[in-house]
Amino acid sequence: MQYPSHLLKVINVLKRLPGVGTKSAERYAFHMLGWPHEHLHEMAHALKDIPEKLKQCTECGCLKDEHICPFCTEERKLSGIICILSSPKEAFSIETTGEYQGLYHVLGGLLSPLDGIGADKLSIVQLKSRITNLKIQEVVIALDSTLEGDATALYLKQELQPLHINTYRLAFGLPMGSPIDYVDGGTLARAFSARSKF
Amino acid sequence: MQYPSHLLKVINVLKRLPGVGTKSAERYAFHMLGWPHEHLHEMAHALKDIPEKLKQCTECGCLKDEHICPFCTEERKLSGIICILSSPKEAFSIETTGEYQGLYHVLGGLLSPLDGIGADKLSIVQLKSRITNLKIQEVVIALDSTLEGDATALYLKQELQPLHINTYRLAFGLPMGSPIDYVDGGTLARAFSARSKF
Repeated sequence: MQYPSHLLKVINVLKRLPGVGTKSAERYAFHMLGWPHEHLHEMAHALKDIPEKLKQCTECGCLKDEHICPFCTEERKLSGIICILSSPKEAFSIETTGEYQGLYHVLGGLLSPLDGIGADKLSIVQLKSRITNLKIQEVVIALDSTLEGDATALYLKQELQPLHINTYRLAFGLPMGSPIDYVDGGTLARAFSARSKF
Repeated sequence: MQYPSHLLKVINVLKRLPGVGTKSAERYAFHMLGWPHEHLHEMAHALKDIPEKLKQCTECGCLKDEHICPFCTEERKLSGIICILSSPKEAFSIETTGEYQGLYHVLGGLLSPLDGIGADKLSIVQLKSRITNLKIQEVVIALDSTLEGDATALYLKQELQPLHINTYRLAFGLPMGSPIDYVDGGTLARAFSARSKF
């Protein structure tokens, strides 16, 4: 017995969400059957309004609410420091730490030749012109600690070398509150080689 | 730094999905920012159309596509057997086994006094009249093997006693492909007491 066709449609659109397979999509869909109409309408409108109400800053690539980007302030432009991210989400994670008051630059992805993402798909040309125009002295590469993140960081280092600025990358080591025997070998090796005086 | 207000709204509506907390909702929302407009519109429409396109059969409570309930056929009405479910979803799971060709009856929930779900919230009066009208001889209670499922099954057994029909409940025991030492004590105890000749 097949599901009713509209239920199948709902399940299929839900499966586009990241990490959502058939079982989760079915669970979500059947849960939604019990929702009041206004909840369904509210979600439908929230989704439809995304392209109009959530835009990326044309300068840094971060998300902005209305017309003004919260990260491209005059104060931050004078900081002389720029932090490179792969997507707009990470800016919010870094902001919660309170450790950083500089500018951001969203690349829009990570180098991944197998997925057809080459250097031309990332906003590297724009990054270079921002570095020159804003008289940036320091670049902090805040990319994932993955194969793609490492490759992109290395590529950026080479690209930025002619500009003669200080390039940093986030530190690697033990995550907070982690017992040593639960940490993988790669992390432990990096934590060892970057050991600091205590 | 707070998320833009519309992003917060999207995250909050996504958190209404079962098992979706802030982290998952954020992941879904940021993923959706990269969707083409038509995907967002398609999902919005699919959700908005749920109340109109997916209705419950007024007789058995199962889901139906258009006007005819796929489970309330004349053939099934002559079977003399009815299977009691808590929600419409389970009918599809049982259909995939190919073991059952009788009628269904959806209670619309399980007894749960703490959540304010008493016997009056379940379609028990309707069940009794269906049993009488359709000359049902056998009832199969297919409810969860949980505290609420057990309580509802016991309550149903008492309620149906005056009708003098055979009442069954799904068997309890080891799930297929399960090593004995991974099975919990309660399941093992039930599998022991219901052991069958081999």
